[in-house]
Amino acid sequence: MDYEIFDAGNVVLQSGATIRNCKLAYKTFGTLNAAKDNAIVYPTWYSGQHQDNEWLVGLGMALDPAKYFIIIPDMLGNGLSSSPSNTPEPYNGPRFPQITAYDNVMVQHKLVTGKFGITTLPLVTGWSMGALQTFHWGAMFPGMVQRIAPFCGSAKCSRHNFVFLEGVKAALTADAAFAAGWYKSKPETGLRAMARVYAGWGFSQAFYREELDIKTLGFSSLEDFLVAFWEGFFLPKDANNLLTMLWTWQRGDIANNALYGGDFRKALGAITAKAYVMPGATDLYFPVADSAFEVANMPNATLIPIPSIWGHFAGGPGTNPVDVAFLDEKLKELLAS
Amino acid sequence: MDYEIFDAGNVVLQSGATIRNCKLAYKTFGTLNAAKDNAIVYPTWYSGQHQDNEWLVGLGMALDPAKYFIIIPDMLGNGLSSSPSNTPEPYNGPRFPQITAYDNVMVQHKLVTGKFGITTLPLVTGWSMGALQTFHWGAMFPGMVQRIAPFCGSAKCSRHNFVFLEGVKAALTADAAFAAGWYKSKPETGLRAMARVYAGWGFSQAFYREELDIKTLGFSSLEDFLVAFWEGFFLPKDANNLLTMLWTWQRGDIANNALYGGDFRKALGAITAKAYVMPGATDLYFPVADSAFEVANMPNATLIPIPSIWGHFAGGPGTNPVDVAFLDEKLKELLAS
Repeated sequence: MDYEIFDAGNVVLQSGATIRNCKLAYKTFGTLNAAKDNAIVYPTWYSGQHQDNEWLVGLGMALDPAKYFIIIPDMLGNGLSSSPSNTPEPYNGPRFPQITAYDNVMVQHKLVTGKFGITTLPLVTGWSMGALQTFHWGAMFPGMVQRIAPFCGSAKCSRHNFVFLEGVKAALTADAAFAAGWYKSKPETGLRAMARVYAGWGFSQAFYREELDIKTLGFSSLEDFLVAFWEGFFLPKDANNLLTMLWTWQRGDIANNALYGGDFRKALGAITAKAYVMPGATDLYFPVADSAFEVANMPNATLIPIPSIWGHFAGGPGTNPVDVAFLDEKLKELLAS
Repeated sequence: MDYEIFDAGNVVLQSGATIRNCKLAYKTFGTLNAAKDNAIVYPTWYSGQHQDNEWLVGLGMALDPAKYFIIIPDMLGNGLSSSPSNTPEPYNGPRFPQITAYDNVMVQHKLVTGKFGITTLPLVTGWSMGALQTFHWGAMFPGMVQRIAPFCGSAKCSRHNFVFLEGVKAALTADAAFAAGWYKSKPETGLRAMARVYAGWGFSQAFYREELDIKTLGFSSLEDFLVAFWEGFFLPKDANNLLTMLWTWQRGDIANNALYGGDFRKALGAITAKAYVMPGATDLYFPVADSAFEVANMPNATLIPIPSIWGHFAGGPGTNPVDVAFLDEKLKELLAS
């Protein structure tokens, strides 16, 4: 096991449910300094785990473990932190409660403050749903977070993004083997269908037009890419876990809490951290226009589209080295400021 | 019955199969003049039927039945022309053969020349898969077709478009009730899943951002739009018919025939008709860049993006009056030239 488990105790969620003995998996890199002012929080993304975040961490990179204490907390529902797949009865499987990004960040905050005694964060950053959690950190703890760098993500799930996810969910659950979440063996047809639906969204039209699946990623054909990359990506994952995280994504909204009472502009306005908001220029579900709205309503934010035809994958998980270099440079610039 | 049936006889398809007593449904508007030089062919789109094309036909409009003889041929597989749902054994249901756009246009050509004795067409036009057939008319019968106006469609199914359709197909067929096409009652879960997948693709991010589903189309909520519009759209349709047309779409390619032997540029170059190629500016599966490539390789074509946030529905089926007015004006301009 390459990670730690933080016992967050009994966590009362926004929904009113309680996760008893809530487990937060996390991995750290580097050393927390004596002043405890060198920690970076870097949350995971939809279906990802901490090891899927490591591509942005390294000596000489912006997230340099020689300088920073980097904490990668695993999202609730991702199979390592408390999830449908690892929670005992009666909250197991499809009875696992609905989790918001707010809930996730509250538990992460417990880890960061309670376990490590950290009171200031030079940076929170993340890709996709990691960006959603990053925005939450900025809005929920403005006094604590000095900088944020959300990339290929949003502070609130857009209506179009919600609809895209409805399609993903419908494909997975159309498989009768899913059995309302009480499957005995995995709903393989549904997972494969979900993968095919996702395939058109993950990369841009130009990515497919230029045949980067073959020419750059090295798959032998388009069908090989759909099977080996996409179906291979989702098949090992637990269906209930995927639906828990999907629900978290669809309901993502930094204003959906007592602090902001649903006022999205107010929540954006409260993010005083210096922010680099970096959408992918060709991301089909986090379009630049949504990021531009966010930046326009944040007091200290800059919009930096990632110039890439890799669609959502411009931001991760380290798939395209050119985009990684771009991101890393911008993170260095932000950290130096 | 508001349409006619043309008996096209025994049609040998590109696949090698034969549709015996092939039926081509069609509807006409206006009167063929004595010179037989006032006919417009206006093919249907994915899952659509002739009545779904009528929004672009009318007195005072470009497609004016007082001036033109407008022929709307129903695509093979659409439930009115020969289709899985209406073909007798042994070619019924999932045994219905695979049909190309080339096959469709060959049958339409039989109707136009054999039944009506027409040898010249002032215009062929169509939306989406209707545009695919329009491009085929231009490439297969360049001496006969004076003008083409394909809108929100392409001369060849792009790889990204192919992937989007893989997702649609996977969602439909993930339903065990589909039973490899031998369903006794309709695979309702699969049809509803397919509808939800389609919903994210049909309209643009901006359409959903601006809540035009509610504010313009009058649905009471996003979920109401997904159920009443999208599920309501696909539920009445036959699953095998939908898959037949989906196959046609995925393999669409004006060069995939003996005339051009797979040389796409050569086929585009052969379209001598004056062409207005009109992609929707925010269409997610027929992006402007694909149309631009086509236009650059056609000898007599102009690229005219439809300035709309209605995504693929900028082109039809008459959903947005502003886009209809734009299209109609361009068609008038083209017909007058």
